[in-house]
Amino acid sequence: MLGTMMNFPLTLAPILERAGKLFSKVEVVSRLPGLGLGRCKYGDIYRRARQLAHALQLAGLKPGDRVATLMWNHAQHVEAYFGIPVAGGILHTLNLRLHANELAYIVTHARDRYLIVDDVLLPVYESIRSQVDFERVLVVPHGHVSVPNNCENYEDFLAGAIGDFIYPDLDENQAATMCFTSGTTGKPKGVLYSHRALVLHSLNECAADSFCLSQNDVALPGSSMFHANAWGIPFTATMVGAKMVLPGPHLDPESLLDLIEGESVTFAAGVPTLWLGVLAALENHPGRWNISWTVRIGAGGSAVPESLLRGLDRFGFHITHLWGMTETAPLASTGFVKSTLAQCGEDHQYKIRGKQGIPSPFVELRVMGPSGEAPWDGVSYGELEVRGPWVAASYFESPETCDRWTDDGWFKTGDIATIDSEGYLKIVDRSKDLIKSGGEWISSVDIENALMAHPAVREAAVIGVPHPKWQERPLAIMVRKEGMEVQADELRALLAAQFAKWQMPDAFLFTNELPHTSVGKLLKLELRQQYANWKWDQ
Amino acid sequence: MLGTMMNFPLTLAPILERAGKLFSKVEVVSRLPGLGLGRCKYGDIYRRARQLAHALQLAGLKPGDRVATLMWNHAQHVEAYFGIPVAGGILHTLNLRLHANELAYIVTHARDRYLIVDDVLLPVYESIRSQVDFERVLVVPHGHVSVPNNCENYEDFLAGAIGDFIYPDLDENQAATMCFTSGTTGKPKGVLYSHRALVLHSLNECAADSFCLSQNDVALPGSSMFHANAWGIPFTATMVGAKMVLPGPHLDPESLLDLIEGESVTFAAGVPTLWLGVLAALENHPGRWNISWTVRIGAGGSAVPESLLRGLDRFGFHITHLWGMTETAPLASTGFVKSTLAQCGEDHQYKIRGKQGIPSPFVELRVMGPSGEAPWDGVSYGELEVRGPWVAASYFESPETCDRWTDDGWFKTGDIATIDSEGYLKIVDRSKDLIKSGGEWISSVDIENALMAHPAVREAAVIGVPHPKWQERPLAIMVRKEGMEVQADELRALLAAQFAKWQMPDAFLFTNELPHTSVGKLLKLELRQQYANWKWDQ
Repeated sequence: MLGTMMNFPLTLAPILERAGKLFSKVEVVSRLPGLGLGRCKYGDIYRRARQLAHALQLAGLKPGDRVATLMWNHAQHVEAYFGIPVAGGILHTLNLRLHANELAYIVTHARDRYLIVDDVLLPVYESIRSQVDFERVLVVPHGHVSVPNNCENYEDFLAGAIGDFIYPDLDENQAATMCFTSGTTGKPKGVLYSHRALVLHSLNECAADSFCLSQNDVALPGSSMFHANAWGIPFTATMVGAKMVLPGPHLDPESLLDLIEGESVTFAAGVPTLWLGVLAALENHPGRWNISWTVRIGAGGSAVPESLLRGLDRFGFHITHLWGMTETAPLASTGFVKSTLAQCGEDHQYKIRGKQGIPSPFVELRVMGPSGEAPWDGVSYGELEVRGPWVAASYFESPETCDRWTDDGWFKTGDIATIDSEGYLKIVDRSKDLIKSGGEWISSVDIENALMAHPAVREAAVIGVPHPKWQERPLAIMVRKEGMEVQADELRALLAAQFAKWQMPDAFLFTNELPHTSVGKLLKLELRQQYANWKWDQ
Repeated sequence: MLGTMMNFPLTLAPILERAGKLFSKVEVVSRLPGLGLGRCKYGDIYRRARQLAHALQLAGLKPGDRVATLMWNHAQHVEAYFGIPVAGGILHTLNLRLHANELAYIVTHARDRYLIVDDVLLPVYESIRSQVDFERVLVVPHGHVSVPNNCENYEDFLAGAIGDFIYPDLDENQAATMCFTSGTTGKPKGVLYSHRALVLHSLNECAADSFCLSQNDVALPGSSMFHANAWGIPFTATMVGAKMVLPGPHLDPESLLDLIEGESVTFAAGVPTLWLGVLAALENHPGRWNISWTVRIGAGGSAVPESLLRGLDRFGFHITHLWGMTETAPLASTGFVKSTLAQCGEDHQYKIRGKQGIPSPFVELRVMGPSGEAPWDGVSYGELEVRGPWVAASYFESPETCDRWTDDGWFKTGDIATIDSEGYLKIVDRSKDLIKSGGEWISSVDIENALMAHPAVREAAVIGVPHPKWQERPLAIMVRKEGMEVQADELRALLAAQFAKWQMPDAFLFTNELPHTSVGKLLKLELRQQYANWKWDQ
């Protein structure tokens, strides 16, 4: 027997309407490319997002059409976050740090129809222009570059939409946004977030045991808006009417601390690399910033070292450790200390906070060992699997990747993890060969394959090695073919044609033999241990 | 184009699983009928709720079968809250305060198949026994009454289920719980809450701007578990792993304050009548309770007087004013002060907190005046209409009530309201003739009709008049037929056969003429003004 409740679809439209009606006077602050601050209010976001939606409809946007963005974190990007999906389109955020070839592949594979690009990011667009085919390119003027031929001024495009926008009927399972992950081997893969998934993810982010985002907060999304929707924070902050502070391209510690101090930020989120920099800045410049209130930090994307938790606690920055992936929208677990553990000592509590936390409501985790599900004992490990209402069930038009899901419907994360008896997740290794540098994934296998394409390279292993600033950086270790010669510079040049600069190994070493498993697979774990204390040239 | 996210239904099963897996050591405390405290943990609730589900399946429960409860607020009722719905059944909470005839009507109309009843509430069951037809009656033993013939011991019933329970497939739109509202004219009407509606309602209750319920809380649901699922708190507290403190039948101020002090309650919810009593007790017994922490209070069901807000603030009890109805699951708006109003003076803030708040995310409110939607100006009034994912779209098998919904799908609340320019709702009157006494609805029209059934009564008006303890109590004002005589006692006896004691008018007055509108309708507003300062016999 069905309930007698209303069929009220969970879409982004009521979030935008709520902000426009209830929080029109709340500020949205953007750090502009030129370092100045732009200020507007949710009333402006509301008006302009609907204007964008209307303009897109007038331009012929059809339901499901992809509209790409090449933009930093700022108010116009928030307009796109709402304006595109509520018009029935799909916001496709492009990772501007990718190599041109990879970016062009993604745009082509996604069949993006329009592009909105920051004027300062036009060089990225130029680098792929010959390989892609956008119907219209809208340039957001920040006053730095004039609009080139064959492009249009975004403001003119908006101004073309007069009259009132009427929301089309939106199905909650319809795709609202799209984001590609290029972490694993093979081609980049797209995740299509449904309206429903984004809404549920945002409801979870308001929860007291999650980000606890409220209209009393000043929220700073320090993860890029082209990374898993900036962890959903633009949606959540808009829903609850939290003042939002967007750092633009300026994620250096000083800029962040200036914003936190100047705008009274109470909540910020980003990868540990960001907060390592912030901690160093606070330690190196005592008294420079006057931040007397507690700043809640959501940190994830790679493991948060205990030293970072302790260090920032001394400055009143309280980190909550998170876990998630592009495929999980991303927030899937949060590392709070349970009430039943509140009496354990300080050291124990830091150990707990150093784990990746317990799953959010409706997110389910399990660890699959060689003989089925591993017990929750904190020791038994296996591949972490996840399911839930904001977890991907497949990649966009990528049937060859269906082995990333189990027959009973769980997503295989590629992370190796344990879960302890209290339910805390701990990521202990990766089953896939990925390196996480400053919050970005680098596929070691892709680089290995490129290196081994050189006639003198017999075998190549690329591993992530701890790095003081980037948490991990790639190190390439190779075995030359007998009697052949090749040097690092030549290999570096070879890779430069295919990879972005930040994806390139920072060092190239040669050895006589690489360790292997009994079935001949590279034993990366052993290599990582061997090079754990590698000293990088600074 | 659809998103690529998992189809993960929003049901109560993952909530129960989460509590069992992550919060098994967190306490659930119950005030027993005999005033002692019962203690168990979510691990017990988890085990026993699944045992109940399994036992119901073994007993032949079919999907959608109604299982009624006649129970106070305690742990076994929480078991039923989960065990019945996760087995595919529908929990039907019976309002034990109703008149036997009304209760019997409800049981029959709902076609309840089983009943779970507290031993101390067997007299209520006995009063309807001859009119209803339960297949099985399970008596929860609290040690007060032996199990009568034709009834079974609930514990024996549970013990019959050994082995592991397997969740049936549950559709998120399936009904999970059922609650009748007898507020308005006509027969009581049932609302069937879907799993989805309850889940979304609970996600909202975790939100920072709502109840902000977290695993750090100790939550006391002070509204009855037979009133709109105790405002959803048993579901929400279980979802987040908050310690729960259930007051049983003991809602007197001293018992509540003893529990708040003794169990370190941080959040409690209930009707203003409760908190008026608590305030009086705190004022009359200075120093008796040592409650040094802030207790967050959710109060709604009738208007919260400003004097109550101010009074409890002095004792560190911070009330958030709520609005909702049985038809809205119930939480639809919360009365927090917006960040953009934080600078206004104290008096202004109390005025804001005295309103019914701003709508929760995804709940939409509008006020319909004579010429369409009234502007948000705080002055224009009309009937309040509501829609959202946890708002009823119809009543259970009651097609004659379809006029309670507009053609465009909004629920007509029967409340007369204004919305101000900041979006704050204020209930100013009721379009239906309802009296709210201590959180319970009394239908004035039903009593008027009963009074006018007396041969000597020409016309009767029953209005709610302010009452220091119950907020409102019914006052009957009548015009006798010319030359005929009748006195209060006779009318009181007449009503006693049809109404519960608390529904009866506390005073019976006679007058020569009642005020009417030009079309001959009773002008209740004028009567309410005339008797606003009525002094009740205490």
